[in-house]
Amino acid sequence: MAKKIPVAILGASGYTGAELVRLLYNHPHAEIISLAAETNAGKEMAEVYPHLRALDLPKITTLPEVKWNEIQAVFCCLPHAASQEIIAQLPRNLRIIDLSADFRIYDGATYEKWYGHPHKALGLQKEAVYGLSEIYRAAIKNARLVANPGCYPTSALLPLVPLMNSGKISLDGIIIDAKSGVTGAGRKALQENLFAEINEDVRAYSVGGHRHVAEIEQTLSAAALGTKVTVTFTPQVVPMNRGILSTIYLKMVPGIVAAELKEILELQYENELFVKIMPMGHAPSTREVKGANHCFINVFEDRSPGRAIIVSVIDNLVKGASGQAVQNFNIMFGFPEDTGLNQVAVFP
Amino acid sequence: MAKKIPVAILGASGYTGAELVRLLYNHPHAEIISLAAETNAGKEMAEVYPHLRALDLPKITTLPEVKWNEIQAVFCCLPHAASQEIIAQLPRNLRIIDLSADFRIYDGATYEKWYGHPHKALGLQKEAVYGLSEIYRAAIKNARLVANPGCYPTSALLPLVPLMNSGKISLDGIIIDAKSGVTGAGRKALQENLFAEINEDVRAYSVGGHRHVAEIEQTLSAAALGTKVTVTFTPQVVPMNRGILSTIYLKMVPGIVAAELKEILELQYENELFVKIMPMGHAPSTREVKGANHCFINVFEDRSPGRAIIVSVIDNLVKGASGQAVQNFNIMFGFPEDTGLNQVAVFP
Amino acid sequence: MAKKIPVAILGASGYTGAELVRLLYNHPHAEIISLAAETNAGKEMAEVYPHLRALDLPKITTLPEVKWNEIQAVFCCLPHAASQEIIAQLPRNLRIIDLSADFRIYDGATYEKWYGHPHKALGLQKEAVYGLSEIYRAAIKNARLVANPGCYPTSALLPLVPLMNSGKISLDGIIIDAKSGVTGAGRKALQENLFAEINEDVRAYSVGGHRHVAEIEQTLSAAALGTKVTVTFTPQVVPMNRGILSTIYLKMVPGIVAAELKEILELQYENELFVKIMPMGHAPSTREVKGANHCFINVFEDRSPGRAIIVSVIDNLVKGASGQAVQNFNIMFGFPEDTGLNQVAVFP
Amino acid sequence: MAKKIPVAILGASGYTGAELVRLLYNHPHAEIISLAAETNAGKEMAEVYPHLRALDLPKITTLPEVKWNEIQAVFCCLPHAASQEIIAQLPRNLRIIDLSADFRIYDGATYEKWYGHPHKALGLQKEAVYGLSEIYRAAIKNARLVANPGCYPTSALLPLVPLMNSGKISLDGIIIDAKSGVTGAGRKALQENLFAEINEDVRAYSVGGHRHVAEIEQTLSAAALGTKVTVTFTPQVVPMNRGILSTIYLKMVPGIVAAELKEILELQYENELFVKIMPMGHAPSTREVKGANHCFINVFEDRSPGRAIIVSVIDNLVKGASGQAVQNFNIMFGFPEDTGLNQVAVFP
Repeated sequence: MAKKIPVAILGASGYTGAELVRLLYNHPHAEIISLAAETNAGKEMAEVYPHLRALDLPKITTLPEVKWNEIQAVFCCLPHAASQEIIAQLPRNLRIIDLSADFRIYDGATYEKWYGHPHKALGLQKEAVYGLSEIYRAAIKNARLVANPGCYPTSALLPLVPLMNSGKISLDGIIIDAKSGVTGAGRKALQENLFAEINEDVRAYSVGGHRHVAEIEQTLSAAALGTKVTVTFTPQVVPMNRGILSTIYLKMVPGIVAAELKEILELQYENELFVKIMPMGHAPSTREVKGANHCFINVFEDRSPGRAIIVSVIDNLVKGASGQAVQNFNIMFGFPEDTGLNQVAVFP
Repeated sequence: MAKKIPVAILGASGYTGAELVRLLYNHPHAEIISLAAETNAGKEMAEVYPHLRALDLPKITTLPEVKWNEIQAVFCCLPHAASQEIIAQLPRNLRIIDLSADFRIYDGATYEKWYGHPHKALGLQKEAVYGLSEIYRAAIKNARLVANPGCYPTSALLPLVPLMNSGKISLDGIIIDAKSGVTGAGRKALQENLFAEINEDVRAYSVGGHRHVAEIEQTLSAAALGTKVTVTFTPQVVPMNRGILSTIYLKMVPGIVAAELKEILELQYENELFVKIMPMGHAPSTREVKGANHCFINVFEDRSPGRAIIVSVIDNLVKGASGQAVQNFNIMFGFPEDTGLNQVAVFP
Repeated sequence: MAKKIPVAILGASGYTGAELVRLLYNHPHAEIISLAAETNAGKEMAEVYPHLRALDLPKITTLPEVKWNEIQAVFCCLPHAASQEIIAQLPRNLRIIDLSADFRIYDGATYEKWYGHPHKALGLQKEAVYGLSEIYRAAIKNARLVANPGCYPTSALLPLVPLMNSGKISLDGIIIDAKSGVTGAGRKALQENLFAEINEDVRAYSVGGHRHVAEIEQTLSAAALGTKVTVTFTPQVVPMNRGILSTIYLKMVPGIVAAELKEILELQYENELFVKIMPMGHAPSTREVKGANHCFINVFEDRSPGRAIIVSVIDNLVKGASGQAVQNFNIMFGFPEDTGLNQVAVFP
Repeated sequence: MAKKIPVAILGASGYTGAELVRLLYNHPHAEIISLAAETNAGKEMAEVYPHLRALDLPKITTLPEVKWNEIQAVFCCLPHAASQEIIAQLPRNLRIIDLSADFRIYDGATYEKWYGHPHKALGLQKEAVYGLSEIYRAAIKNARLVANPGCYPTSALLPLVPLMNSGKISLDGIIIDAKSGVTGAGRKALQENLFAEINEDVRAYSVGGHRHVAEIEQTLSAAALGTKVTVTFTPQVVPMNRGILSTIYLKMVPGIVAAELKEILELQYENELFVKIMPMGHAPSTREVKGANHCFINVFEDRSPGRAIIVSVIDNLVKGASGQAVQNFNIMFGFPEDTGLNQVAVFP
């Protein structure tokens, strides 16, 4: 058996860190050597996440205590802004998958506009590869630094990039109405995310301008061969832990019908392990992908002539974060893409 | 004190029937004389709905057992199709608020197209008044038969009708993405609505063609002075009991900005008790109206130029059904519109 | 109509404060004159609780800004320990209903043992009346300071006190296994109460020694004519907003059967508006009392000979807190006990 | 690699059937050859459970269509009563793990008392081994027919059997107060299990006499060396999909303290992979075992002298059903006990 790649998880006490532990613990070619997290340094992982108690895991350390020389790959789950500072200081021989937003935007000015401060590692920003696995597989393979996509963008771009490439859809008027479980907001103690505040509620937020728009538009504009694409994007929180359902409204180029869009996606993804186009008429729902690295997609003809509706679902913590990170790890190190990612969805 | 209007609730064992009991029980000018429901006839209401045990209510009877000669107003919560047959046989002196879809569509052919069978009471269909209280108040006042609007349409039409009237928005490209609690599906034992199927799930259904489109388009086309309006409408079920949040995407007439749309709505609803336009930047969420007869609305400028986003929330069982029914009852009988409807929203 | 009693709510930005607003807003004999809360002073109540936006409420002030000379009754929802300091300084002419734990324990040493510090207002502690409305109605009527009972104790004591009085149950071996919604923990931003932590979880806490044991035992010991009663009490949090279900395990005095216990409770509560004994075999559940001031109780024969099981449910924010507080207000000021408390339970 | 054991799942369209698919699909020594289910025969599993769409599974067939001669092991998820009739007709060479209640009770009269009809396969009933893996491992190894324990009994017996064996606890007065997620009730369309009925509710049922008492008492009586043990057991449903938390109240033999009970359990389970005794003071909660085959247990000293409280949690669909079934399969066929059962708990 191949030697295991020794990995570190930085920011291990957030939800994406814990999810990486779940996915990597049984990965045949990865071994978790270090778990680092500032506030919880010194604790056992089981004190922070009691569901991991039965596992044999290293103690959480501070960042400086990580044994950098023993490690080959780093999963970075630190908050954005912090991430760029830490990663800039890591040894150059490490291969890094960054789950923050810090390296997703190629352009310094665009980054600054959406994130409110100048980027502190512009060189790395240019080096980074956007880790939408099925689309940028070739570049990811050789990347030293992969910027793991946001959860909302993953759910929207997997159907939209091939369609944009095809030239069969209108560049304007794309609307992405996304519904997310609460874990997308992380584990920080915020009043607005208390159980009693989220339960029995649906809320929209950042209406008209959420940060994830930046990476969606950057990627779609590239797919449109450089024509700037502007999208409408509304994120909403629904009372569940995991899952994103994106309902996407499109205008088609004259003469095109929804069935043709579906064919494009079927062709694009026919050999993919994780992206599946649903049978005629079935609208996928988030429970179908819970705990698994899948993206399930379907295309519907709208009754407004010339319009199509796409429904796309992922688990925000898996394909929308830690699962795609492991997939990118597999691509980077030459393992079959589903290594360690064969978990069956957990339903009910 | 004014004499109380004796009322009957037909179809009392569904969720809208139980909600009518909640709202009418303390209504100072209404008295529940009869509760009718086929399957549960002979039972006490407390056997069907144990949360009503402390109330002094009549026993559930069959429809023929209702003392029609003692009753002045009927709330009809029967399933559609059944409703039109029953209502056609009721004494002409009764004033009726029908919560089914049966009398919402004025046109026989349109009804047949969406509901799959010819209407059996076309004359009544023409007589019926669409009970969107704030918009059709004058007609409701004198109506014998009020067709209480659907829950989704109520949440969408309250913001859209005044805007359509104003001529400031484009007639085409209106998209209504709605998220609903599960009670909208009623109390029928369906596998798909079991707790374990709905919990931790968001699902879209009837994508590209839900029946409620018919009444939305009928009403918007009237507001557009007869120009046929076609909308895109996607309903979605989220894991909560009550509430609808509609996210509405609009194109504005050139030169118009979102703030002007908001002003139109503020002007339209400034004296209304139940429809409230939110302060700048606040996206209302469903918990804010739970248990109350409110519709909370806000308008946002989209970052796509020329586009606006509206967020509108109601409790589907109150303003979306039984609450609006009581409001219509108040209008019909000349009581102040909020009589019996002063319940404060229940949060958390 | 009687003049309205001007009231203040101190600690208005917690859940019990908001619930008092819901219940008092339509109370025909109370008027909310002041809302005070340290952290949110200066804000409109609608900024803190958007579901109250449609109400006409005073702005939140600091405590010193309350117009004490205009007020007759105070509802105090401050945290325990803070409450005793504030109340000690209030004008003597005010009648006070304290929802904290501060004045529930008559004995200074017992208070100190459970709450970890000496009581700072021992005189008031002795003056206070324990506000279990149905049991101590006469004393509440004349009290200046009422200590509103805890939520768990209310659910347990309403069935247990009459049984203890009757001498038909064993003093030892009483076990109270309670399941509560999350609002019992308040609105403080704690990681452990985030939606994603509570959802899909049941947890026990303070196993073997929760503070509410003190007031349960104090009250039961009084009912046992001074014999010290020790109970076993386990609180558990379940993923819902409101409601407490207490399952109570009892040994009966030899020769007694469960039906006799039920008769005792039926006799005790036959004229009560809020406490209802269920029909044979029906185990009440929390949804039956959600939003209402009820306590629903039933008694079951256990298959272990000589044992009975009681199931008792309340809404922790209503009968377990703010509703019982309003009930006590009504008793203190001579209004019918259900004034302002006729809300029908909200289901679903 | 060892040849895979070909297995059939009968009753594949229930929740335990789908969970077996999740656990067996990646099992290195099992291969699902047949899926049978009466009502859904002829369908793809993905039509019944869309979360299994990405898997390569056989089509669902009727029972007679199962290729019995190709199969070595059968997992039977049929409803009780049906199960005994089917199993009685299966070829004698098959090894069977029955997840129904049919073969859990050794005594015909006891079975008839609790299940309301005479057992139709009394011979098999005597042959069957009760499949509480950690307790009856040796007998399971050689069994042809294993009766997989009920979910509630598993959570209660894992802590209670060793304590009963030890003679350190009182035989009488054992109280098991259990809280379960809804999947324990299966996928049948019942009004009482609709989302809107379960959400925001806790309910007790079968108070004083649930069928699972029979297997609990049978097993505890055996552990008490034949002295008949009678327990009090109250099941409760809480609004979540998965998980059981049992709070168990015990009296200890004079002179014993809770720490000694804990030591007994630590000793008993120190080498077990799935049963873990928690560190001092930590009350395990259901989210800690969700999706995993664990049972987490802790023991607490009660403040009532001589009493201890045990908290025990499992995932009702895993250790409480399909996971324990796979564990028993591993024992029966000589595989390491955690083969295919290394899933990390899924949190949040």
